[in-house]
Amino acid sequence: MTARVLVVDDVEPNVRLLEAKLQHEYYTVITSNSGEEAILKALRDNPDVILLDVMMPGLDGFETCRRLKEDSATRHIPVVMVTALDQREDRIKGLAVGADDFLSKPIDDVTLFARVKSLARFKSSADELRLREAAGRRIGVIEGSLNRDLGLNARILVVEDDPRRAARLKKILDVEQRPMLMQDANDLGPMGQSTVELMIISASGVSFDGLRLAAHVRGQENSRNLPILAICEPDEKVRALRALEVGVNDFIYRPIDDEELLARTRTLVRRKRHLEHLRLMVDSSMELAVTDQLTGLHNRRYMESQLKGLLARAARGGPPVAVLIVDIDFFKRVNDLFGHDAGDDVIREFALRLASNFRPRDLACRYGGEEFVVIMPDTNAADATMIAERLRSSIEEGMFKVGAGRQVLDITCSVGVAIGHAGELDFEALLKRADEALYVAKRSGRNKVVAQAA
Amino acid sequence: MTARVLVVDDVEPNVRLLEAKLQHEYYTVITSNSGEEAILKALRDNPDVILLDVMMPGLDGFETCRRLKEDSATRHIPVVMVTALDQREDRIKGLAVGADDFLSKPIDDVTLFARVKSLARFKSSADELRLREAAGRRIGVIEGSLNRDLGLNARILVVEDDPRRAARLKKILDVEQRPMLMQDANDLGPMGQSTVELMIISASGVSFDGLRLAAHVRGQENSRNLPILAICEPDEKVRALRALEVGVNDFIYRPIDDEELLARTRTLVRRKRHLEHLRLMVDSSMELAVTDQLTGLHNRRYMESQLKGLLARAARGGPPVAVLIVDIDFFKRVNDLFGHDAGDDVIREFALRLASNFRPRDLACRYGGEEFVVIMPDTNAADATMIAERLRSSIEEGMFKVGAGRQVLDITCSVGVAIGHAGELDFEALLKRADEALYVAKRSGRNKVVAQAA
Repeated sequence: MTARVLVVDDVEPNVRLLEAKLQHEYYTVITSNSGEEAILKALRDNPDVILLDVMMPGLDGFETCRRLKEDSATRHIPVVMVTALDQREDRIKGLAVGADDFLSKPIDDVTLFARVKSLARFKSSADELRLREAAGRRIGVIEGSLNRDLGLNARILVVEDDPRRAARLKKILDVEQRPMLMQDANDLGPMGQSTVELMIISASGVSFDGLRLAAHVRGQENSRNLPILAICEPDEKVRALRALEVGVNDFIYRPIDDEELLARTRTLVRRKRHLEHLRLMVDSSMELAVTDQLTGLHNRRYMESQLKGLLARAARGGPPVAVLIVDIDFFKRVNDLFGHDAGDDVIREFALRLASNFRPRDLACRYGGEEFVVIMPDTNAADATMIAERLRSSIEEGMFKVGAGRQVLDITCSVGVAIGHAGELDFEALLKRADEALYVAKRSGRNKVVAQAA
Repeated sequence: MTARVLVVDDVEPNVRLLEAKLQHEYYTVITSNSGEEAILKALRDNPDVILLDVMMPGLDGFETCRRLKEDSATRHIPVVMVTALDQREDRIKGLAVGADDFLSKPIDDVTLFARVKSLARFKSSADELRLREAAGRRIGVIEGSLNRDLGLNARILVVEDDPRRAARLKKILDVEQRPMLMQDANDLGPMGQSTVELMIISASGVSFDGLRLAAHVRGQENSRNLPILAICEPDEKVRALRALEVGVNDFIYRPIDDEELLARTRTLVRRKRHLEHLRLMVDSSMELAVTDQLTGLHNRRYMESQLKGLLARAARGGPPVAVLIVDIDFFKRVNDLFGHDAGDDVIREFALRLASNFRPRDLACRYGGEEFVVIMPDTNAADATMIAERLRSSIEEGMFKVGAGRQVLDITCSVGVAIGHAGELDFEALLKRADEALYVAKRSGRNKVVAQAA
């Protein structure tokens, strides 16, 4: 794992020292001597990690961090604050402005590389999603700002077999999270349906091997994205680094500083929620591609892909598929007499009633304009016709109110019904037969259901 | 980096030995004693890497690998073939059935962990994309099988400062790739516009540090996803592993075996193309969400998001924006008299002519049914009206042929024009004004362009 690291410090020898250390480990280094310049370079060079000194004239580290985290163009870059040793106040202040991690001067090499590596790894896996999300945002399928989660109130599983230590962890976490204690790691079942958002594992458990447990959780399909925080003994530096190697996301040494534990916990929870949110945005932007914007029903594209699948299943001996094409009668008049907004109102209301008239397994789609298609799996002609007739009469009986004046319109619809032949795979031919039946319904006076000749 | 590894060998002690080694390094291990069982476990447990013995009764390793790589449900899992020492024939046969890598017995620990780690890392970054792609496939926005690229004919940049060695590499690669030699690594500019698909870097260059070069390439935004193959001296095992650490994807030892070099090259190229293909599929499935299925024009969703952006720009002092709403006259008659297919033909043909009548910077969208919207950035009322008039007359003059009989129809359209006010941000109000102008055009006889009153 290599990465580009932006080192920010007003004291030139400090910059040179960090640069030399990082370059020796094959990191690419960018440097800056002020907060102002750091913000410009973060924007321009998009580094993977920023090492930010706290004490600087002009913009100090806190203010620089706050600005980096406020700008959506730099918010995703992890920031490590570099503080003087044991400046607990600084840490708390840093967390308040959104810092991702801390290093104390004089900087210990092993800890430096561990932190940088871990943050760069996180950024690299987030980047793939972030790029997809940015693409969606550019074309307008993803809108609104990413919510800035505080990382609070998460369900946290704490695995610690020393009862006193476990109780103390719970007490600290209880302030702002929802911890659950587990003393026997063997109780850990599959994490499939779990709503746990973070695991805290004691690396010095007696009855279990914390690292093996972490590796196991990380290796399982269902818990692959679950963040893990390891708690290590102060003399176990090598083990802490090993923990990062096997997939632990962060670690903390005993004796535990309450503030530090809470801060690292919040950061891990926030990051997990951020990634999940990105995933959801990308997936739901794909959903948009099969959703009709006006009615929220599925669109023609989705209908066709599902109908293909159902016909293939029917051809392999599965149950028959019925298709209905539903068209609003004299819809053009609505637009002409009352305007497009009224026409849209009718279509939205019609879609709602259409959807409520079918069974959950049926698929109601907007086919285009004032035409809808309903796919009914496992349905014969008699049942399909009966359900279509029920729809027709409920539309005829209901009232449609449109426009600001809530003018009442009488709306009717015509329906064509067709059933997939045994072994039929051509969804277009099936839709065409339904369309022909619809045509007969229209020609014979509208407000009718017509099923194709068997 | 931990991972779940499926170990397949009919000789139980071999399985136990590998299991113990891997578990010691915190890998999760699944085992199997036959090819048949391995295929079932690959399907059920979705391991991250499969270590597959070549010599087995029943399904041997080659046949097992072939079946794993043929099934789209297991194809993405990297397979490492375990062969007897120096069985060059086996390697070539393994490559032919799609194996991703090789290990020779007796298995050297360092090489084992390096290979497993590298493949698990690849799979982990591919999985994020694969899951998005699978979601798209489920809802029908991604269709068709992933093409199975052979990894041939790639542009490969070979960085080697020993002229004899460089010439030999080129000669081997020339058989099926397109290598380019670079002797001075300092010539390497930014990889921005590059079409290079793979870099081969000599780790024992004299005039440059191969590992530093690899880290640099990996660290740059534009070459982050470029695969790198390192060529190492036979006694440089530690350096080879270090190379993997800094982001090299694979390495090969001198003296170079032609077949092995070609095979590793093909695999790296194939993987890169596969990932790019996945990225493209996910991005273009998002594109679908803003594309009208019938005409290929952008849809209402996209139009609205772009119009919002342009109005915001205009409000900040940018140029004015013109909006046209174009409606096909008497379109309902086409559907009623000639059927929906003819109606679709007219809409498709109309969309083509519409698009060809505007400038590249204008945005023509299908708004729904027989209505289109054209957004014209930086355009005043006079120009917009003139261009709309040119469209109207070109539609009136052209012929529309529909249906199998290529029946000729006379088609005309009406256009409403509106211009965004200074500082106007309400895109709906702007569209409404264009719609009102369209209504005037329709009421006054159709086949007309009407601009809103200024």
